[in-house]
Amino acid sequence: MKNSFGTNLQITVFGESHGPCIGIVLDGLPAGFSIDEKQIEHDMELRKPKGKTGTQRHEEDTIHIVSGFFNGYTTGSPLTILIENKAQRSKDYAPLKYRLRPSHADWSAFEKYHGYQDYRGGGHFSGRLTAPIVAAGSICKQILNQKGVKIATHLEALYTLEDDAFSTKAEELDQQIDLLNEKQFPTLNEKKGEEMKTAIEQAALEKDSVGGILESAITHFPAGIGEPFFDSLESLLAHALFSIPAVKGVSFGLGFDFAAKKGSEANDALYAHDGRIETTSNNNAGINGGISNGMPILIHTVIKPTASIFKAQKSVEYDTKENIELTIEGRHDPCIAHRARIVVDSMIAFTLLDAWMSKAAKEEFEEETL
Amino acid sequence: MKNSFGTNLQITVFGESHGPCIGIVLDGLPAGFSIDEKQIEHDMELRKPKGKTGTQRHEEDTIHIVSGFFNGYTTGSPLTILIENKAQRSKDYAPLKYRLRPSHADWSAFEKYHGYQDYRGGGHFSGRLTAPIVAAGSICKQILNQKGVKIATHLEALYTLEDDAFSTKAEELDQQIDLLNEKQFPTLNEKKGEEMKTAIEQAALEKDSVGGILESAITHFPAGIGEPFFDSLESLLAHALFSIPAVKGVSFGLGFDFAAKKGSEANDALYAHDGRIETTSNNNAGINGGISNGMPILIHTVIKPTASIFKAQKSVEYDTKENIELTIEGRHDPCIAHRARIVVDSMIAFTLLDAWMSKAAKEEFEEETL
Amino acid sequence: MKNSFGTNLQITVFGESHGPCIGIVLDGLPAGFSIDEKQIEHDMELRKPKGKTGTQRHEEDTIHIVSGFFNGYTTGSPLTILIENKAQRSKDYAPLKYRLRPSHADWSAFEKYHGYQDYRGGGHFSGRLTAPIVAAGSICKQILNQKGVKIATHLEALYTLEDDAFSTKAEELDQQIDLLNEKQFPTLNEKKGEEMKTAIEQAALEKDSVGGILESAITHFPAGIGEPFFDSLESLLAHALFSIPAVKGVSFGLGFDFAAKKGSEANDALYAHDGRIETTSNNNAGINGGISNGMPILIHTVIKPTASIFKAQKSVEYDTKENIELTIEGRHDPCIAHRARIVVDSMIAFTLLDAWMSKAAKEEFEEETL
Amino acid sequence: MKNSFGTNLQITVFGESHGPCIGIVLDGLPAGFSIDEKQIEHDMELRKPKGKTGTQRHEEDTIHIVSGFFNGYTTGSPLTILIENKAQRSKDYAPLKYRLRPSHADWSAFEKYHGYQDYRGGGHFSGRLTAPIVAAGSICKQILNQKGVKIATHLEALYTLEDDAFSTKAEELDQQIDLLNEKQFPTLNEKKGEEMKTAIEQAALEKDSVGGILESAITHFPAGIGEPFFDSLESLLAHALFSIPAVKGVSFGLGFDFAAKKGSEANDALYAHDGRIETTSNNNAGINGGISNGMPILIHTVIKPTASIFKAQKSVEYDTKENIELTIEGRHDPCIAHRARIVVDSMIAFTLLDAWMSKAAKEEFEEETL
Repeated sequence: MKNSFGTNLQITVFGESHGPCIGIVLDGLPAGFSIDEKQIEHDMELRKPKGKTGTQRHEEDTIHIVSGFFNGYTTGSPLTILIENKAQRSKDYAPLKYRLRPSHADWSAFEKYHGYQDYRGGGHFSGRLTAPIVAAGSICKQILNQKGVKIATHLEALYTLEDDAFSTKAEELDQQIDLLNEKQFPTLNEKKGEEMKTAIEQAALEKDSVGGILESAITHFPAGIGEPFFDSLESLLAHALFSIPAVKGVSFGLGFDFAAKKGSEANDALYAHDGRIETTSNNNAGINGGISNGMPILIHTVIKPTASIFKAQKSVEYDTKENIELTIEGRHDPCIAHRARIVVDSMIAFTLLDAWMSKAAKEEFEEETL
Repeated sequence: MKNSFGTNLQITVFGESHGPCIGIVLDGLPAGFSIDEKQIEHDMELRKPKGKTGTQRHEEDTIHIVSGFFNGYTTGSPLTILIENKAQRSKDYAPLKYRLRPSHADWSAFEKYHGYQDYRGGGHFSGRLTAPIVAAGSICKQILNQKGVKIATHLEALYTLEDDAFSTKAEELDQQIDLLNEKQFPTLNEKKGEEMKTAIEQAALEKDSVGGILESAITHFPAGIGEPFFDSLESLLAHALFSIPAVKGVSFGLGFDFAAKKGSEANDALYAHDGRIETTSNNNAGINGGISNGMPILIHTVIKPTASIFKAQKSVEYDTKENIELTIEGRHDPCIAHRARIVVDSMIAFTLLDAWMSKAAKEEFEEETL
Repeated sequence: MKNSFGTNLQITVFGESHGPCIGIVLDGLPAGFSIDEKQIEHDMELRKPKGKTGTQRHEEDTIHIVSGFFNGYTTGSPLTILIENKAQRSKDYAPLKYRLRPSHADWSAFEKYHGYQDYRGGGHFSGRLTAPIVAAGSICKQILNQKGVKIATHLEALYTLEDDAFSTKAEELDQQIDLLNEKQFPTLNEKKGEEMKTAIEQAALEKDSVGGILESAITHFPAGIGEPFFDSLESLLAHALFSIPAVKGVSFGLGFDFAAKKGSEANDALYAHDGRIETTSNNNAGINGGISNGMPILIHTVIKPTASIFKAQKSVEYDTKENIELTIEGRHDPCIAHRARIVVDSMIAFTLLDAWMSKAAKEEFEEETL
Repeated sequence: MKNSFGTNLQITVFGESHGPCIGIVLDGLPAGFSIDEKQIEHDMELRKPKGKTGTQRHEEDTIHIVSGFFNGYTTGSPLTILIENKAQRSKDYAPLKYRLRPSHADWSAFEKYHGYQDYRGGGHFSGRLTAPIVAAGSICKQILNQKGVKIATHLEALYTLEDDAFSTKAEELDQQIDLLNEKQFPTLNEKKGEEMKTAIEQAALEKDSVGGILESAITHFPAGIGEPFFDSLESLLAHALFSIPAVKGVSFGLGFDFAAKKGSEANDALYAHDGRIETTSNNNAGINGGISNGMPILIHTVIKPTASIFKAQKSVEYDTKENIELTIEGRHDPCIAHRARIVVDSMIAFTLLDAWMSKAAKEEFEEETL
């Protein structure tokens, strides 16, 4: 699948950081869905670097829908979005080609592409490729929203700082989601948000970078979606999230804290009220046996500190195999965790919509007995 | 893909806990590969419950290769493995059908299958389905072994106990891998292993269960394998690992500890010696930009405490929506983390072999210039 | 995909002619569908060789559903069917290994599998693999039948003999379909059927074989299913049909006769009556732009004469590259066109059900405006 | 897969006849392959309408490679080609929306997309979408050419006229292929070509259209490529070819003429010379058991007469269900068979390159014993 992903719904991303444009094809969308382009712009805005917490490369990121959209509605044909690269710097990248940036894809790209990769600004590995993903994800999110599903992500942790937790009360959680979706810097606790921004700016001053953990909440997603094995919701969501550059860990609910729990602590007790089943806790994050149970889905995604830092680093020249000291110049983010939140939302929205469509595929043929 | 997974190599699992047999089809294997059936038996043995740390359901798990294997070699046709279910208990499961076991797939299965699922012993959701996965994974591992690749997994943590860490020295790590593959209870530190066994037995005595974290190491896997986006090695491996029942988190290298690091601490400095590139640290666990760089791949997988416990739990009857107190009877594991280690190895072996074949697909057409 | 096929519904075939069993996994079926095993047996019977028109290898072909079927209903988990091979002849095939049978897969199999293929009785290339396909297809056909869809195939031509044509009247066509599905030898015209049987027996007497053309009709298949490009109904159906051994051509409606037509003759004029649209002719066989329009789908499939004949033939020994005269012994069919009819029905049923499920996948999300 | 196709190599087409641009993403290409853009232009030229035998809509069809191509070489990242639509006529298509053109996709598109489809000039169903396919196919063909593979297609039949046959001698066939690839109107026999052109012009004068049959020859394609079942070379090629608008039949070698043959006539006798195996005839067209044997691959593809004709036709208005007489205006081709030849070449080149890569995927792991 390489640069495509999905079953009934499929995305295909293309482009490089310094090429004329980047883009995405979103295939398999239902016809007749009204798209609010303003909402896409809103989501694109949340991905943009702001002030001192982001890169100084400022792209307009105007989206051009060139197919699959007609008279304000999806047509059912592949919907293609193009975004021009405008703020490339016309410097000569050739001398940098062989100077490997530590923990970047420079080295592994050489091993894979034998030197033919477009190395300018990270090429196809660039975080810029997440811009069309946000545009496509915004469309998927709009469809899910119309069905009542809500999605948002906050900065659960940044460097050593922690945000407040999501509420365990359904209504409060919905309110938190709505609020987060209006915030440029995604914390539940405003004060913690300010501290985090300061920490990012501090890292920038130190010519360094910091990482963070994102926590996503999805509410009102229907029960019964996902598969027992290879298309478990966790498998699909993790597959999607690990395709975002800099993601090195994904967990659900209690996640790695499950290890130190006993079953009696970890299990989510069930109770029924008004003919409806719920669980008292939600350690399993709305997914059992790979299938949604209707409770909120909660996902943790760790974003490593930006590999590009201004500090001098030990490295190697690929062609000569000479040991060098490397100082990276140019424009880059001292932290991408906060900007990644909307990319995470987008990959989640895409994945859940596709999974839902896979369930819908069978329903026409199924009998209900209960 | 549901019950199938893979691109050039594909597995398809089928069967239920109380059906006549379970099995797997492994399609896309190269022809002419010699399989050591004794090695498969060895790996199957590592999955079996032993003593008081595992379930009292003891299955022989004799494997029957019914296709794709001829005169001791793979034929290139689909290789199918059947394993009979012999130790089902012939009790009447019908009265239990609607009594939802907390944190099991019972509830979500009702939402998905509307009561038609085979509910006996977990049906298709049962951990028994991992038996054929181990058999298929053993074959993949044998192919990788022949190419020099080594894979093993240890119990990094069990409940509140921790094993020693993998060595950061290449040779020592290889030795640790070899040793682990001979151990029924997979710890690097023998004494810690004994303590962990005791902790599991203690949980059993308390009618409870415990979870754990598995850490896998893969050495000598070639550089240049994986894809920048949706087929990043992390995406593929996480997809595979999250399909194992009870897995709730997957991370690579520093994993969630990346969050509290600065870039200058997290980045892996490069150095060259004897014309070969390596990194001084390996926080990124051998993968940059989704592509292997030749350093060891290190993966953490959290296994939640077994959902089946003997303690009474609050639950619901699905059909009547009545609140009940449920006491689960029968046979189950007080911990599955140690048994899961070989399942994890198997899914990793399958995934890495498939990814390697995808790289090989292009090599005939590529020129090397460097 | 190799030995798997399908999107929302997937089949995976495995096994060899002389292995212990052959089988199929049918994944993605809706849950709660009642399967009539007698109907599967009925369809299996139509595939069996009878009298002098078929091979003397007589297999019971008893089907064993080992998963995905519980209390008389599909569970939604992979449904697996095993069929034992019982009538293998225990002769030593090794001396025949390198003696290439003309127009068989012997030669190309050597090129692909380098001698590791199971060469006994055609191995994985054997027509026996179509037995599990018929069983799985029968299940798909039962689902389609319940939705009102009818499918049948007749022997449009056998050697130089031709059957009557399908009726162009809807009701008559439905009656013909029902009649064909009860006939062991599938012709509309009984007398022509007898002549064809005689032609097959004559070919057998001459130590030779004959080919034929199958025409399939599908009625009451809903409009709006299929895709403009790579999943056009014609693409999907042809993909499925060309996977049947001995098929060398597939066409729809006028097929190759379209070439010598003018547009004004070939186009199907539209007319409306009682608020319903139909076409006066059906040259396009119910498919426009890759999408069904609700008219009957009509497909022609040519089956080449059985490659195995008793006449001596010029050939080569693969290992020595020596020119030889080869006389094939053993049991084989003087014609397989009539037996293939139910295989063709099965592949069509599978493909159309999968395509329908792909449409259903979107419908939950679509608005109707007309 | 809808608008994507392929396994190791994948194409994704997008765009509509009257949108701003159409395009294609070609993913999975090997890195480091030099592309001759002039050769792409050459192939694009062969698709263009010329004189009175084609539509009066003249598009420049300048290709823009916007990703995956750097410094004259493929990078290994998705290669994306955009082609602007420039010659749309700015008329108001709305009044035509419901007036169904017979044997077009208008009707079935309404059934599928409920009126949301872009109906202008055929929208996503337009033959214009074959322009990016030719560009992508040209790249695949260049890779195959470098490996020694030759591909060309001639107009085997047009209306009632027939071209000469391909030579059965290897060297002559190669020469014919080379010649055809330089010809705008693809016949082996010049005089027949002139007669065919006249027939097309005559059809245009009569406000009508004609169909034709294309025969493709592929030489020097390696043996051992393809799969026994669902990825048989015939399945893959037919899948690809039936996705081309107006294709209604595909056959290989003797094709539908196999029916009236005896096995002894149809089988291709084998002989060895100089340690190499060949067949004396090539009725099976280089494919046995779904796998190439090294002989030329020969494919017949029937193209129906253009559905758009200027003659008045009986039709229906979709919304009112009123019977109407429809006269189609605008620009269209009296025949598309000759233009389709390069589209056919392109789909073949893509499919064969992908199949080859799938074989290469295994080769690193296979032992050769013969």
